[in-house]
Order: sequence, then structure tokens, then C-alpha cells
Amino acid sequence: MPAKQGNAKNSLKELGMKLIEQIKKGRNPEIVFPLRNLSNIIYDTKSKTLKLGDKKGTRAFFNVAHAKKFLQTIEVASTIKDKLLDSGKHSSLRDVFYMVKKTIPGTNINLVDDQPESDKAIEDLEVITGLSREQLHVNANKNGSVAGKVVIEDKGDTIDWSKLGSGGWAIPSNVEEITFKKVSAKYVLYMEKAAVWERLNEDKYWLKNDAIIVSSQGQTTRGIRRLLQRLYEEYELPIYVLCDGDIYGAYIYSVIKYGSIALAHASERLTIPGVKYIGITMDDIEKYDLKKHFIKLDEKDYARIKQVSEYDWFKDNKAWQRQFKMMKDFKAKVEIQALSSRGISFVSEKYLPDKIRNKEFLD
Amino acid sequence: MPAKQGNAKNSLKELGMKLIEQIKKGRNPEIVFPLRNLSNIIYDTKSKTLKLGDKKGTRAFFNVAHAKKFLQTIEVASTIKDKLLDSGKHSSLRDVFYMVKKTIPGTNINLVDDQPESDKAIEDLEVITGLSREQLHVNANKNGSVAGKVVIEDKGDTIDWSKLGSGGWAIPSNVEEITFKKVSAKYVLYMEKAAVWERLNEDKYWLKNDAIIVSSQGQTTRGIRRLLQRLYEEYELPIYVLCDGDIYGAYIYSVIKYGSIALAHASERLTIPGVKYIGITMDDIEKYDLKKHFIKLDEKDYARIKQVSEYDWFKDNKAWQRQFKMMKDFKAKVEIQALSSRGISFVSEKYLPDKIRNKEFLD
Repeated sequence: MPAKQGNAKNSLKELGMKLIEQIKKGRNPEIVFPLRNLSNIIYDTKSKTLKLGDKKGTRAFFNVAHAKKFLQTIEVASTIKDKLLDSGKHSSLRDVFYMVKKTIPGTNINLVDDQPESDKAIEDLEVITGLSREQLHVNANKNGSVAGKVVIEDKGDTIDWSKLGSGGWAIPSNVEEITFKKVSAKYVLYMEKAAVWERLNEDKYWLKNDAIIVSSQGQTTRGIRRLLQRLYEEYELPIYVLCDGDIYGAYIYSVIKYGSIALAHASERLTIPGVKYIGITMDDIEKYDLKKHFIKLDEKDYARIKQVSEYDWFKDNKAWQRQFKMMKDFKAKVEIQALSSRGISFVSEKYLPDKIRNKEFLD
Repeated sequence: MPAKQGNAKNSLKELGMKLIEQIKKGRNPEIVFPLRNLSNIIYDTKSKTLKLGDKKGTRAFFNVAHAKKFLQTIEVASTIKDKLLDSGKHSSLRDVFYMVKKTIPGTNINLVDDQPESDKAIEDLEVITGLSREQLHVNANKNGSVAGKVVIEDKGDTIDWSKLGSGGWAIPSNVEEITFKKVSAKYVLYMEKAAVWERLNEDKYWLKNDAIIVSSQGQTTRGIRRLLQRLYEEYELPIYVLCDGDIYGAYIYSVIKYGSIALAHASERLTIPGVKYIGITMDDIEKYDLKKHFIKLDEKDYARIKQVSEYDWFKDNKAWQRQFKMMKDFKAKVEIQALSSRGISFVSEKYLPDKIRNKEFLD
């Protein structure tokens, strides 16, 4: 569900009010929140997501080890409330850093010196309030495009994703406030490569197959993940992920599905447990005669296969363990674009429709 | 002007016909084209662009050193003609590589083994035909967004860049075939950072200032450069570039203005001699009190300053030499976002309007 701005403001006000109460009662002002370090990050087999455990930390004002971090958290909370939420404006992590980077009055000490300090304070606020960065109006990167039979409303504009030519709609960093007016699609196809998106868009794949096509260029931004999640949760659309046939493709898929260690505290706002991997799989290699387009694995690839295959969420997954073993046996990877050797539109006219029809997915 | 597909087809046909004629006359089939190596790349002080000189190379079929490259060029030409131009479809460098990667009949030799081979063949075709990669339907990367009071037509869709909410129109890799229907803007502002674009878009900068705002995320793609160039040439709109105050910002600007060594053969289709640099300049640092946001230069920065300041197109430019000297004297760089310390919308409400009003540009 899209965030209500009022909630974010109220949460931050509440945080401030609690501190004022503590001060009035003559207590040492402190904030309690779930710990975000590795020992408190668990893979929850029930919800199938990475999340934070029950360990709590406190940050107190009258504590030499805590005082600066305490101040940073409060200053960031105050900046977000006054400069962003009250004005309805949004900002980036980097901008917030510059906004809070000032000298503490009466000293020559900077409140923050490096961006990781303000970033951590924002993460603190996420776990304290249970709100996402985006709900606090702090946006992540902007990246990616989307097309399909969907009409949305955003900032007063009605935008039809099926009428945007060769470019598509540029996905903003923050999709909390967009409203879906009409969604006519059977599924969403997310691909890591913009060049593949352009192929599918030119072939009007989304029109012929009642699909929504989404791509980034490399990194799956939080904006894209939330967009996929909203379509999955609000419209129960299946989400399929199309990546290169290599360990990095498997990892891109796993981040969308299970979350990532760095963002474990935001899992429930970002992960999509039902997402499925459509390809390229190691089985596709025989089936579509792609061996001649093998790219040899290097040391880094092998190390990454070992690491990813041992992740909690993969280690008991037989289908994926079989894939990892095949990668090692083949000693090679293949790219999505290798399908172009079978014909320029093979991916949109044959490969994807067949996979969808036969429900050939990895889970 | 947008490319005519017919021209590209005819150029490739002509290339084939010439070869057939040579064969019929019993001659050794050969192709002649301008050399693209460093010795033939010159900075033309008159047109103020990097371009190719007069040195020509030939590639002949009956020449052991040329035969494979000759075949590659012809195979790529044939693939582009048959698979792309005839079908009206577009493709990427990587896809073309896979399309031409096959075994030469009767041998066990691959026509191409690595992508640089097919890439070079495509560059050959660009210089042979005088057409761009995009006109040959081989697209570069997709990246970036645009907003402003502009209406375009693309693939049968009418797209209003002023009605696309917080996302904007996603710029395609190829803008040759879009048609401008209405352009109501006084200038175009291109920025390297998507986060700054989101700031300006949220503040409706383009509406309040009659501007078109364009951003990439990092790399200025060929699609973006051509889009800027078309607005500059077809609508005589000034183009201003907004980057971080560092040597990389200066270089981003210089590539848009003068071209790059790697793409010298495509200069006239990509460079914009009239483009101006709006900031961040070294003078802004004093003026806007940004010294406290200095980021110290490292060895790599100094080396790059030396290199860029010695480029032909910068070495006699006093204004820029002064900037480079100031960078070294400050021993530091500043980011655009440092302006956020002056207020979240300082960049859109004060910094940019002042600069435009006072015509404070670097040329």
C-alpha cells in the first residue's frame, strides 16, 4: 500500500515527544531499536525473507560512546520532518548528508563528517519507525523503464504505459505515491538488461502477451523492487525474472525474492516471495543449442557460485543446487543475448512465450 | 535530421554492388575507408570537433592479412541489411555480435570470436556509409530521463513530456525516428546526476523556467547526445551542462561539446559545438560558500586534471585553464549536491535561475 505522509510525520513526532518526556522526567534520553548487525540478521524460513531478529540496541544521550550517534539520529529525524515531509519534497541520501553536515554550535565538531554516518541514521529511523526510506522521502537511485497496458496517476498526471513509444516510462526512485488506475496484464516480466527490454518493446511483447515489461540497466533499484512488489501485492500479478545464465543472474533474482543482507531491515517492504526465475537456465543451454556461445568461468565466477550456493535461502533448494552444479560442470555461462543467434526476435516470439505457456520456471 | 531508413539500405546495397562489379571485372574485391587510428584523429579548430583526417585504408579479400576482416565487414553489412533494416527492427552491438558469430562454412573457423571484432566492423560501416550506428539500426545503451514542455511522436504514440509525473520519459537508445511536434522551451539543461533531475522535476523547474531537463545516470549515452543535438540543431535551443565541480564534470562537458577520441569518426553526428557549462565551477565555491564541503583530490584526480588540461580543445582555452588551475590550488572538488546545504531547493530556485539570468557560463 502506498505510504501516507501523515504516518511518517506522526512517527517522527512521536519519537521526539518520547524524548521530551524522558527529559522532563529527568531521565537519560534514549532510543531503542532492533540491531542491524550480522548476528541479528536471520533467514526466516516461514516468510522466506531475510529479516532482523529480536536483539535490541539502545542509544543514549548521556553516554560518551552514544552521544554523537544519538545526535545524528535526532538531527536527521528533524531534517526529514522539517525539510522533507512538511514541504512534501523528496531528497537523496547524498542531499540529506549535505543538509545535516554542519558544525555543532559552540564547538568545532561536525555533526557528520562522512555520508555513511547520515545513511546509518536514516536506517536507524527506518527500523525505529517501521517506515521505509521512501516513506521518509529519502529516495534511492533512479533507473529503469516500464511499458505495458497500465494507466497510473502520479503528481496529477495520468500516464498510460502503453503509449510511450520506444522509451517507456522512466521509473522514478520512489513509487510510493503513484496510484494504479487500470492494470490489464497477466504477469510482469523484469529483465536485467535494457537492450532486451528494447527488443521486447519494439516487438510489442507486452501488447501481444498481456504483460508488463520492466528493466533496469544493471542494478535493480529500490524503486523498481517496490514497483514490482506493488504489482504483485495489489494486483496479484506473477513476477518473472529474466537474467543472464550465470551466478550474477541467480543473485539478482534472489535479492528480489528474499532480500539482501544490507537491507534485511527493509525486507518486508522490498521482497517478493512469489517471484519466479524464467531464465536463462542451465537447461536452456542444451535445449536452445547455446553451447557454442559459452563464456568460460573465471576464478571470481567460481568463488561467487560457491558463496551464493551456500546462502541459507539456496542451500536446501534442490532445483537451484542443480543449476549451480551445472554451471560448474559446464565451466561456463551464457548471456540472454546469445538467443539472438537463433533470430533477432527469438526471445520475444519463441523463448518467452514457450516458457510461460509450459510454466517452466525456477522457484 | 532524422535518418531515412531508405538511405541506409541504399548505402549498404551500393557497397555490395560495388564489390560485385569488382568481382565481375576479375578484380580483387576491396573496400576503401578513412583510417580510425590515433594518427588520423585530429582536432579541427574550425568546426571545433574531433574528427578523422584524410588518411585512407583499404581492406581486400585476396590478402591474407585482410581476408577475415573483409568478410566480417561484409557479413555485418549483410546482417544489418537483411535482419535489421529490411524488418525495421533495431538491435544492440551485443546482439549483432551473436547474430554474426557463426562458423565459416566448410571450415571450423568462427567468423567472429569476440565482440570487438563485430563492433569494429560496425564502425567500418559507419565511416564507409557516412551513417551512424543508430541509422544502421544498431543501438547503444538506454539510459536517462527527460521532462519539459515538449510533445513528440514516436512509434505512433503522441508523448507529452510535461505530463509524465515523477518519472519522465525514459530516453531510448535511439532517437533518430522520433518527431518533435511542439517544443516550448528556451533552453535545455542536461545534468549528470539523476538525483538532481528528480529535485528539479519535483520543483517543476522545467515549467517555471521554460526549460527541458535531461539527465543520465553517469554515462552520457549516444541516445542522450543525439537528443540534445537534435534540440540544438532543429530548434536552436541553447544546451547547458550541469556537473559536479571536478575534472570528470569538465570531461563530460567536453565530450558533449567536442566529441571523444573513441568516437571521432561520429563527431558530426554527436557533438554540439555551442553547448555551455553552467556549473559547478571553481568560482561557485567562493560565491556559494562551499569550501566546507570540499572533497580532497587524490592522485588519480591530479593525473586526470593534467591529462584533460592538455587536450587540444582545452589547451588554449584560458577560462578552462583557469578552472583547472583553481582545482589544483584548492586541492579539492565539490559535488552539485553540496548546494543542498544551502537549502533543499537552492539549486532550482536560486543557483540555476541566477546563472541563466546573468549568463554565467563557461565556454
